[in-house]
Amino acid sequence: MSDVAIIMGSDSDWPIMEEAAKTLEKFSIKYSAEVLSAHRMPTEMVEFAQGAQSAGYKVIIAGAGGAAHLPGMVASLTTLPVIGVPISLKNLDGMDSLLSIVQMPTGIPVATVAIDNAANAAILAARILGISDASISQKVASELKALNEVAKEKGASLQSRRNQKTGF
Amino acid sequence: MSDVAIIMGSDSDWPIMEEAAKTLEKFSIKYSAEVLSAHRMPTEMVEFAQGAQSAGYKVIIAGAGGAAHLPGMVASLTTLPVIGVPISLKNLDGMDSLLSIVQMPTGIPVATVAIDNAANAAILAARILGISDASISQKVASELKALNEVAKEKGASLQSRRNQKTGF
Amino acid sequence: MSDVAIIMGSDSDWPIMEEAAKTLEKFSIKYSAEVLSAHRMPTEMVEFAQGAQSAGYKVIIAGAGGAAHLPGMVASLTTLPVIGVPISLKNLDGMDSLLSIVQMPTGIPVATVAIDNAANAAILAARILGISDASISQKVASELKALNEVAKEKGASLQSRRNQKTGF
Amino acid sequence: MSDVAIIMGSDSDWPIMEEAAKTLEKFSIKYSAEVLSAHRMPTEMVEFAQGAQSAGYKVIIAGAGGAAHLPGMVASLTTLPVIGVPISLKNLDGMDSLLSIVQMPTGIPVATVAIDNAANAAILAARILGISDASISQKVASELKALNEVAKEKGASLQSRRNQKTGF
Amino acid sequence: MSDVAIIMGSDSDWPIMEEAAKTLEKFSIKYSAEVLSAHRMPTEMVEFAQGAQSAGYKVIIAGAGGAAHLPGMVASLTTLPVIGVPISLKNLDGMDSLLSIVQMPTGIPVATVAIDNAANAAILAARILGISDASISQKVASELKALNEVAKEKGASLQSRRNQKTGF
Amino acid sequence: MSDVAIIMGSDSDWPIMEEAAKTLEKFSIKYSAEVLSAHRMPTEMVEFAQGAQSAGYKVIIAGAGGAAHLPGMVASLTTLPVIGVPISLKNLDGMDSLLSIVQMPTGIPVATVAIDNAANAAILAARILGISDASISQKVASELKALNEVAKEKGASLQSRRNQKTGF
Amino acid sequence: MSDVAIIMGSDSDWPIMEEAAKTLEKFSIKYSAEVLSAHRMPTEMVEFAQGAQSAGYKVIIAGAGGAAHLPGMVASLTTLPVIGVPISLKNLDGMDSLLSIVQMPTGIPVATVAIDNAANAAILAARILGISDASISQKVASELKALNEVAKEKGASLQSRRNQKTGF
Amino acid sequence: MSDVAIIMGSDSDWPIMEEAAKTLEKFSIKYSAEVLSAHRMPTEMVEFAQGAQSAGYKVIIAGAGGAAHLPGMVASLTTLPVIGVPISLKNLDGMDSLLSIVQMPTGIPVATVAIDNAANAAILAARILGISDASISQKVASELKALNEVAKEKGASLQSRRNQKTGF
Repeated sequence: MSDVAIIMGSDSDWPIMEEAAKTLEKFSIKYSAEVLSAHRMPTEMVEFAQGAQSAGYKVIIAGAGGAAHLPGMVASLTTLPVIGVPISLKNLDGMDSLLSIVQMPTGIPVATVAIDNAANAAILAARILGISDASISQKVASELKALNEVAKEKGASLQSRRNQKTGF
Repeated sequence: MSDVAIIMGSDSDWPIMEEAAKTLEKFSIKYSAEVLSAHRMPTEMVEFAQGAQSAGYKVIIAGAGGAAHLPGMVASLTTLPVIGVPISLKNLDGMDSLLSIVQMPTGIPVATVAIDNAANAAILAARILGISDASISQKVASELKALNEVAKEKGASLQSRRNQKTGF
Repeated sequence: MSDVAIIMGSDSDWPIMEEAAKTLEKFSIKYSAEVLSAHRMPTEMVEFAQGAQSAGYKVIIAGAGGAAHLPGMVASLTTLPVIGVPISLKNLDGMDSLLSIVQMPTGIPVATVAIDNAANAAILAARILGISDASISQKVASELKALNEVAKEKGASLQSRRNQKTGF
Repeated sequence: MSDVAIIMGSDSDWPIMEEAAKTLEKFSIKYSAEVLSAHRMPTEMVEFAQGAQSAGYKVIIAGAGGAAHLPGMVASLTTLPVIGVPISLKNLDGMDSLLSIVQMPTGIPVATVAIDNAANAAILAARILGISDASISQKVASELKALNEVAKEKGASLQSRRNQKTGF
Repeated sequence: MSDVAIIMGSDSDWPIMEEAAKTLEKFSIKYSAEVLSAHRMPTEMVEFAQGAQSAGYKVIIAGAGGAAHLPGMVASLTTLPVIGVPISLKNLDGMDSLLSIVQMPTGIPVATVAIDNAANAAILAARILGISDASISQKVASELKALNEVAKEKGASLQSRRNQKTGF
Repeated sequence: MSDVAIIMGSDSDWPIMEEAAKTLEKFSIKYSAEVLSAHRMPTEMVEFAQGAQSAGYKVIIAGAGGAAHLPGMVASLTTLPVIGVPISLKNLDGMDSLLSIVQMPTGIPVATVAIDNAANAAILAARILGISDASISQKVASELKALNEVAKEKGASLQSRRNQKTGF
Repeated sequence: MSDVAIIMGSDSDWPIMEEAAKTLEKFSIKYSAEVLSAHRMPTEMVEFAQGAQSAGYKVIIAGAGGAAHLPGMVASLTTLPVIGVPISLKNLDGMDSLLSIVQMPTGIPVATVAIDNAANAAILAARILGISDASISQKVASELKALNEVAKEKGASLQSRRNQKTGF
Repeated sequence: MSDVAIIMGSDSDWPIMEEAAKTLEKFSIKYSAEVLSAHRMPTEMVEFAQGAQSAGYKVIIAGAGGAAHLPGMVASLTTLPVIGVPISLKNLDGMDSLLSIVQMPTGIPVATVAIDNAANAAILAARILGISDASISQKVASELKALNEVAKEKGASLQSRRNQKTGF
């Protein structure tokens, strides 16, 4: 049984959404990933959303581009938190996706993350699951610490490369 | 039996969508008008959209604001042409509504008209129905002619007001 | 005699507009395709638009980029429904084309589809023609079903590729 | 002990953020509300964020306008999920606030909701808390049902007002 | 015989376009002003544009809002210089008008001025006519000088008001 | 003596501005072309602008990108008509250039053409010079006719390529 | 002798720019304030900018709206730091002003602050002057402290008002 | 001891921020450069900002992309002038970075320069330091002069290349 469902409007979204999968694996969070287009599979989407809670999911991550209706429609059919990932297509740099996902009416929120940033959707899911699962919360803390260390190392490496070059 | 269904996400959209109703009345086209929120009434929306053709509708006009999913979702559940009216809310001047409605993926078009311009949705419906109903097509032609005459009269009146003022 | 006229502002628009042609062929809808620039061929455009209905056309698909006046101008000269395809040029990602096409004044609607999405213009034409031609309406339904199946197959294939990789 | 902390950059944000408070009360979720400016109270903000988990908070709702740094900065200092509410100021309709909040780098997500929609932040918090608290989850479900009924009633009322007027 | 034709898409544009008229009067340049909608009066527009040069016009000022096609269409039908005034409507602050007017394809330029700034269209016309009419060119120079003096006087008055207040 | 001065903010603008030069040559209009940066050569710019009329110039074409001040500043220092060409740089697709050039205050218009479209600046100059020089006006007319013929030929060629391919 | 020059494109900018004056007074920094339009007073502007350093100014604050050239042009004529205040006009919410001021080419920076935020321009000037004048730097520190205290008091007052209302 | 601190959110910002370093070297201004992410190193950032003045820094240059909080957060923790460089990432061309940096609330200004223009941040720092260090001020003047000469040389070279080609 998976805690997180990753759904996306098209298999062409997978290169972006794969980062959510990889990140959840890093947190050892069980997930499923499937294509579930709001527009090409509307009844399957309704069925999925209505059954998501009974299926044991706790959080849904939904990625979509353009007139991106998947996250909001799923949110209207479940009480689970839905995280939306706006995906940039050929034009408009994802601004259409972002506005289609984030500007939901009162009553049906979608937790929107940055354009094309599916990894952040996974980390947000981990933070949410971490509320009632201390082991996940600790992994989020470790990840924050790791980010901090990597950032410092990269900074140090930049420093040393510069010193070699400028002879400071 | 109505030829056109006017649907809208909220009763607060009525002041905008009423123009579609009034315009259809001018063309003597039968229509129904109802609130059908994609997000607050998703299963009703699915049911409506799946049954729209059997119910005898020929064209659907759907108005919505913000993350405006109603037109696109209905289009995914029917083979009828769906006309989308982007409605401007408090912020962003309807740009979010416009992009949420017009930027549909290949396979599921929405015939989008100008922001807040429900009258044009009705005229587009009349043009569509006019393809196979010459009486409607003639009314569209008459309306174009009337628009032309009103524009010319207003122009003439502007001219005469100016002449009085400037004594030309 | 063609049911649909595909017109475009320039032959450089053909790579985009060709998708409309291919899609109409898929629906076995007869069409013509020609270059008809609002700005470089204004009188030809007027003549075409005024004669379009008598020439037997039922729907006009017009693609244009930048200050895209072709769809709106043609719509002002005919009572047929006009579908506008905003084409993205070098700058602005088609936002100029979209606004030039969709923001028509009351009285003269253009049925606008997504930026660069000529296939959707053709599908919209098919939905419109399908109102009075059940065989086309059925093809639109079949196409929706096919889209659904392809989406599910792609989803399944994604699933199986992932399983091979992750050994799930 | 509160489950949700509502924080905002300025007391002038209260008319917007108050909706989050009211909505949480409707769900009987305990919360605190305080002004905590990222820019005018940076060390207090750091202290709050670092201590939020130990203080027993489970979710943080942060509203801010303009160069809205509060949600993202708090998210960088806690492992709790942070919900961001972009607040529109005098210019730009909240687009600056939205982008400042949603476009977070990989590692530090903020769950962004619609511009000025603090009620949705509260509902999202309820959905999140509902994962491990069935009573809250049921309230979210009831609220969805209530929204559905209100939408239908308003639709019915619109219908009846129209019938009186048009004598349909 | 008028040197400048002021045309506009609707009589509701007159409060904006009137500034062009007033400014031309200041320069003693003869002009006509009329409503000539690209969309509601397309054949009148064509006729006007084709005959504008023979009618003795030297410059055309065209104001329009939304999908603003009037300036560009007229430019495609005459060899006279056409000055476009983008007019802001209820939504989008004139950005749609601006892009519809300025983004013309190679071959058919429109000399676009600031949104809602019809006075500048008139001054531009005066600069253009001033090339071959020294008396107009001198009036433009006088106007520049007057602007300079008014600006300096206003600055001085601001200075003196401030001094009274601050006692500097 | 040149009738038109082409000036540009940087020699990196030449690939864009060269089209103005080529187009003026096509019209046999004498021009000069020089780099004249508003920001790197402000006093040279002032001197040029103040002397432009005495130097015999009739029209100035000014291209600039980013915070594009050259066209507007020159316009404030001469009574000649100034045509502005917004040039797109690495970011923002020329939207910054367009707004910096077109949004001039009352009193100092710049005749703005499409982003990166220096050819249109030249054609606009030709239209302006054509007011008092019938030979130029006739060349503009010939050019419009040529554009019309090329558009029709390209359309015909598209038609014939399509026929070969589809065997229509 | 003033340390800071406040200049603005028009006396209508004074209600915005006055905040810079008031803020400098709070810091006891001597300033002058004058109208100096880039477009209506170009030669006065050049003269001012070239003489600003000799006149003893250390920092220049320049406010302008629309095609806002004043800050950038002054920066090109002095070596003093120039702070730009984008002022919002009737349309576009100051986005045109912001881009016209901030997007300066390499070599000529303008220190741009938030749209309509002249107070921040003054505080930035104080920070700059504080580098070599400890008394100003201390006032900036005091102001930061005061902001912090006011924010906390307002937060406390909000808290107490809420407690009275909710009886917490 | 360095006068200027260059900080940036990530080592991937170095290719942009390196131009600030190179430019400061040209002015012989001592600087340090380090990675200091607002989101991945928040406590290090606070510590740095609080100690920056005591460490002898006079100006801070901070580059960041997306939800760019580094410049504003550092500005809230120091009384030194902070210069912000908005860095463009994969989407939105740096518009998110620009708004996140420039739209600071009253009390905490960030001196924002053009998107991706770190060289200008360095020149602005030089202008600021030049207020109390005539040798730097003279270098800024020399640099302005050099820019002027290079611009003129490039213009001359363009002229000569054109003359060779056109035989003028």
